Amino acid sequence: MPAIRARPPGRYLKIQEVPILRIGVIGFGYWGPNLVRNFAEAKGGKVVAMADLSAQKCTAFERRYPGIRTTTDPRELINAADVDAVVIATPVRTHFELAFAAIEAGKHVMVEKPMTETVEQALRLVDAAARRGVTLMVDHTFVYTGAVRKIRSLVESGELGDVYYYDSTRINLGLFQHDVDVIWDLAVHDLAILDYVVGEKATAVSATGMAHIPGHVENVAYLTAYMGSGMIAHVNVNWLSPVKIRHTMVGGSRKMVVYDDLEPSEKLKIYDKGITLTDDPERISQMLVGYRTGDMLAPQIVGREALAVEAEHFIDCVTNSKTPITDGACGLRIVELCEAATKSMKMRGHPVEIVSR
Amino acid sequence: MPAIRARPPGRYLKIQEVPILRIGVIGFGYWGPNLVRNFAEAKGGKVVAMADLSAQKCTAFERRYPGIRTTTDPRELINAADVDAVVIATPVRTHFELAFAAIEAGKHVMVEKPMTETVEQALRLVDAAARRGVTLMVDHTFVYTGAVRKIRSLVESGELGDVYYYDSTRINLGLFQHDVDVIWDLAVHDLAILDYVVGEKATAVSATGMAHIPGHVENVAYLTAYMGSGMIAHVNVNWLSPVKIRHTMVGGSRKMVVYDDLEPSEKLKIYDKGITLTDDPERISQMLVGYRTGDMLAPQIVGREALAVEAEHFIDCVTNSKTPITDGACGLRIVELCEAATKSMKMRGHPVEIVSR
Amino acid sequence: MPAIRARPPGRYLKIQEVPILRIGVIGFGYWGPNLVRNFAEAKGGKVVAMADLSAQKCTAFERRYPGIRTTTDPRELINAADVDAVVIATPVRTHFELAFAAIEAGKHVMVEKPMTETVEQALRLVDAAARRGVTLMVDHTFVYTGAVRKIRSLVESGELGDVYYYDSTRINLGLFQHDVDVIWDLAVHDLAILDYVVGEKATAVSATGMAHIPGHVENVAYLTAYMGSGMIAHVNVNWLSPVKIRHTMVGGSRKMVVYDDLEPSEKLKIYDKGITLTDDPERISQMLVGYRTGDMLAPQIVGREALAVEAEHFIDCVTNSKTPITDGACGLRIVELCEAATKSMKMRGHPVEIVSR
Amino acid sequence: MPAIRARPPGRYLKIQEVPILRIGVIGFGYWGPNLVRNFAEAKGGKVVAMADLSAQKCTAFERRYPGIRTTTDPRELINAADVDAVVIATPVRTHFELAFAAIEAGKHVMVEKPMTETVEQALRLVDAAARRGVTLMVDHTFVYTGAVRKIRSLVESGELGDVYYYDSTRINLGLFQHDVDVIWDLAVHDLAILDYVVGEKATAVSATGMAHIPGHVENVAYLTAYMGSGMIAHVNVNWLSPVKIRHTMVGGSRKMVVYDDLEPSEKLKIYDKGITLTDDPERISQMLVGYRTGDMLAPQIVGREALAVEAEHFIDCVTNSKTPITDGACGLRIVELCEAATKSMKMRGHPVEIVSR
Repeated sequence: MPAIRARPPGRYLKIQEVPILRIGVIGFGYWGPNLVRNFAEAKGGKVVAMADLSAQKCTAFERRYPGIRTTTDPRELINAADVDAVVIATPVRTHFELAFAAIEAGKHVMVEKPMTETVEQALRLVDAAARRGVTLMVDHTFVYTGAVRKIRSLVESGELGDVYYYDSTRINLGLFQHDVDVIWDLAVHDLAILDYVVGEKATAVSATGMAHIPGHVENVAYLTAYMGSGMIAHVNVNWLSPVKIRHTMVGGSRKMVVYDDLEPSEKLKIYDKGITLTDDPERISQMLVGYRTGDMLAPQIVGREALAVEAEHFIDCVTNSKTPITDGACGLRIVELCEAATKSMKMRGHPVEIVSR
Repeated sequence: MPAIRARPPGRYLKIQEVPILRIGVIGFGYWGPNLVRNFAEAKGGKVVAMADLSAQKCTAFERRYPGIRTTTDPRELINAADVDAVVIATPVRTHFELAFAAIEAGKHVMVEKPMTETVEQALRLVDAAARRGVTLMVDHTFVYTGAVRKIRSLVESGELGDVYYYDSTRINLGLFQHDVDVIWDLAVHDLAILDYVVGEKATAVSATGMAHIPGHVENVAYLTAYMGSGMIAHVNVNWLSPVKIRHTMVGGSRKMVVYDDLEPSEKLKIYDKGITLTDDPERISQMLVGYRTGDMLAPQIVGREALAVEAEHFIDCVTNSKTPITDGACGLRIVELCEAATKSMKMRGHPVEIVSR
Repeated sequence: MPAIRARPPGRYLKIQEVPILRIGVIGFGYWGPNLVRNFAEAKGGKVVAMADLSAQKCTAFERRYPGIRTTTDPRELINAADVDAVVIATPVRTHFELAFAAIEAGKHVMVEKPMTETVEQALRLVDAAARRGVTLMVDHTFVYTGAVRKIRSLVESGELGDVYYYDSTRINLGLFQHDVDVIWDLAVHDLAILDYVVGEKATAVSATGMAHIPGHVENVAYLTAYMGSGMIAHVNVNWLSPVKIRHTMVGGSRKMVVYDDLEPSEKLKIYDKGITLTDDPERISQMLVGYRTGDMLAPQIVGREALAVEAEHFIDCVTNSKTPITDGACGLRIVELCEAATKSMKMRGHPVEIVSR
Repeated sequence: MPAIRARPPGRYLKIQEVPILRIGVIGFGYWGPNLVRNFAEAKGGKVVAMADLSAQKCTAFERRYPGIRTTTDPRELINAADVDAVVIATPVRTHFELAFAAIEAGKHVMVEKPMTETVEQALRLVDAAARRGVTLMVDHTFVYTGAVRKIRSLVESGELGDVYYYDSTRINLGLFQHDVDVIWDLAVHDLAILDYVVGEKATAVSATGMAHIPGHVENVAYLTAYMGSGMIAHVNVNWLSPVKIRHTMVGGSRKMVVYDDLEPSEKLKIYDKGITLTDDPERISQMLVGYRTGDMLAPQIVGREALAVEAEHFIDCVTNSKTPITDGACGLRIVELCEAATKSMKMRGHPVEIVSR
């Protein structure tokens, strides 16, 4: 970087200083590279440091990003004076410790999903962030996709009518996560989408699962969330499926949406279908139930990478003291559901109530 | 056309008398016409009478089948001397009464699925049939498809390895059944397939459901069956889906099968995919979990209409005193699971044990 | 509704005789049964006789339609006093002879596609029908589907803009037609759709084909029709394809349509996509070419069976002296294109001009 | 791992010098970045220089590859002493001039497809490379995919039987290429695949096309290539299609292959389908034509990026004096077909003979 020379005297336009958020990323495994790439290109931010326990990962990083310093000690990054915000993309079991330390060091924090391993940890993070006055955000990437934002607007505007159900199948042949089970890994996406789209909290959760490798976590699971309004959300997750499916339906009283994330160009299909109730002219005491079918519309979806939208949202929230869409409280709600699911799974699907706070 | 000449005198082959099963069909609504058509064309059988409460249905029937007599009184058909076997395709709530009367009249009986409304009724039918020495069979049509028979042979031969899970999605926008809920209407197909393919009885069932029309039965439901071996079967049924899906997966330790009944030509896909466990050469105490992926084979499936196969199987069982694949005991097992699911649904998914008999 | 007045004493309203078109069908092979079924149920018409050279076919017919007489002599049907209209579903080589005889006998005629084997024959049929004042219609079934009618309305209303191209793939593993080649069998559908949708006559045709069985007709072919407006239509037909495809695109300057006849519920997709021409602000002499992409709409299509619509249209045209949409002149235009394609195919794709009449 | 023992004193193995091919890449537009990335990672080679007329592109390149020098003067790169081989990814109209200069400078050359704009140019390149003893290769990427290599092995081994036809649809809504028309841009892929898979030269080509933007090149085209053996290849290319399709069929007398390049996991499907000829037992003079249908197999395909395979193949050919699969002669054959197609397109599809050399 060239040294800054003294300005010659005279009149100058006042240059407005745009604050640049200086970001440190911890973890350069599966997801970290995507975070680094998007934060590196995000307006108002720049990546200044990266920490990974693996020296090999640090070397690979340096080759790709020669100007950014690396360290194998996350604490060093957390305490660095030139780091304003810390982005954490490490195994789930380390989320709390790293995020807590960063918050205590006065840094803004964005944590990969799920935010923490336990509700207890999540509560402590939310509390610490409030106390220290820093931004805490959880990386629920799908919430920032054009498709999910469109679904939310369809619900909010009333175009779907009353939401009857949320039904999602999220299965594939994937690498086993040794860290968390398939609910904490895959169902968490649906719980986050549901939280954003429906804006209602579950009152109970039921889940069942199977672990096919002795000593390993559950790799197939089914989760049902009961919402206060009577609506049910159901999620089918599986790491041992021969085919990859990402199929989500939101059924409403007026319209219904099918969201297929693997569809390259028509991710969202809005069906003008539903139930109609008609008075039976002959037997007035009875209601006739019929079906209504109409056009299907696949609206053009904003194609921008979700993580790019999310990175700028984080920077905007920090810079302008806004509350993130997926803030700590949101992260906490999702961890609550996952924890309840874990409990239910141990009881073969017995529903577990969610304590309202 | 050549004129028929008089036979020359002399010795002739004695014409062997082939017994023809004389069948009466009760019910000419949605499914009845398919049964009539297939039994009319089945070898060794013929339809001699049809009963439907609606005189209009009888008239329509007569136009299509001028040679077969009709009646609006099912009892008349049941007691007719020229009827050997009764095929029942009426609303579920009438199954027991009609089937029981037919058995008591000494007729062989085939009943549409589900066999009865309650376990109690199913037990009485099985008992009566045994006592009277007549054949009792339930119409689990999918069991007689080429695809399901192929899946069973893959399981039996060990080609799939240990069966890890059965996962089925059976959803569409359908006419509401006022008679039974979506589990007794749609999930019953999967329970029958499972019973045939896996040959193992569930030890407990958990189910949740929603009824979106006040005063009507559940139109969306999720059912989980726990098998003794530790395997789980999961069924997603929905009458209020904007899209029609018939997607069934059977995951095994060696291979996995995807059965898509809506696929016109490649209904069954067998994936040479699975988990591999490798000894870690460096740390002997650890097992490495990896994935194996290979070819996919879509075997040619016998294309014959399932109901045609089934009709001849019924006739064969009656004529030759064989036990039907889907006999009364099988029908009873499925009714047990449905009844348990109904109980579980009232307890928001609390698992209900299946009493072993 | 006008009030019903009391009838004057004594005189009664004469019951208005609704003319019923008495139809004779010739040919009960692959397509004939569909014609019989639809004409039997069509308003204003009834099937009174059926002729097929095969006594076996006649017997099978009688079993299904006990009230309709049959004959193995088509001439008998053609000359029957109680037959007003003759529907011909026989091999193509017999179309002309049978249709001509029927017209000369004063009968209205509907002929399966293609109308005749040669332009010469088609001209004579059109001429004879005009001379005798009877209705001549060709069975271009696709023209009567909801999907094709919708495409025509999109073109007519200008919603698609200028039509740039018509591109169709119509392939499958089919039974070899010993009678006509794959162009006269399959491409004829596209030529009929094109004729109806675009309403413009081709000025030249180019075609190439292959016959893979020695001594048999072409079973793979590619046809290009050059329209006066500069538009090109291209048709890919194949009896030797391992997969069945029915994929037709109509590209317009404003919108584009994809019509997939095998898609059960979304046969038609209308894409708000196209080219945009923008003035380059920097180099005024140049036009920038860009793409516009927007929503996709799958409109609900009238689901009624095309042949039912067509049968009533024929009866309506005969009864009310209207000109059929697919009249003899239309049949002639399609035969002209097929004949030109045959010529071109012998010259390895050399384009053959269509003489304007 | 065995412990490392101390080396005995005295004699040591001489370290073998592995020659590293020093590569210069010209052009950093659409395709160049892929070439740089793959050659940078290829065994036995390294990228030492990059040239692009745009200083902006050079700057972008330097940011991504800090260690590789850039220049806005391709001649400088071509004449650099430390460059052994030149990879050209520039507009087609510059291919000949750059490749010729590189060959004359004694460099090995790999050129993006199509190799040149004219047959004349292609001949001069092939001649120059032979004269100078350098390797000339054309970048026909698809030839190096696992799918296309598998198709070739199916043809070579006789598993498909006699090849009856090649039929490809390669359409999408793409950016208009101002440089070349849709045949030189898209059909060239199929001509290269055909050349590799069938190993037979076309004897004539017929093509038709449409240009929908005044003053621009053809954006929709249909090409038919006639092979000596009687086989026909047909290619449908379109830059103005609302949907993206990459569907290629190779029909053989024994089996048939469908190659769908957009299918994520089952790109290749091998159908055990075909024609069977049976002697008619009753009329011996006639052959009965029937169909045979059997299983479908989707073999696992080598998933390695084609360009990585290709880069190493180029390095191997240069280093070990082998002839590339897609050598200059191959590039020439494809240019011959494209040139013939251009001529045919001007004559509305009149077939153009390919002069054998």
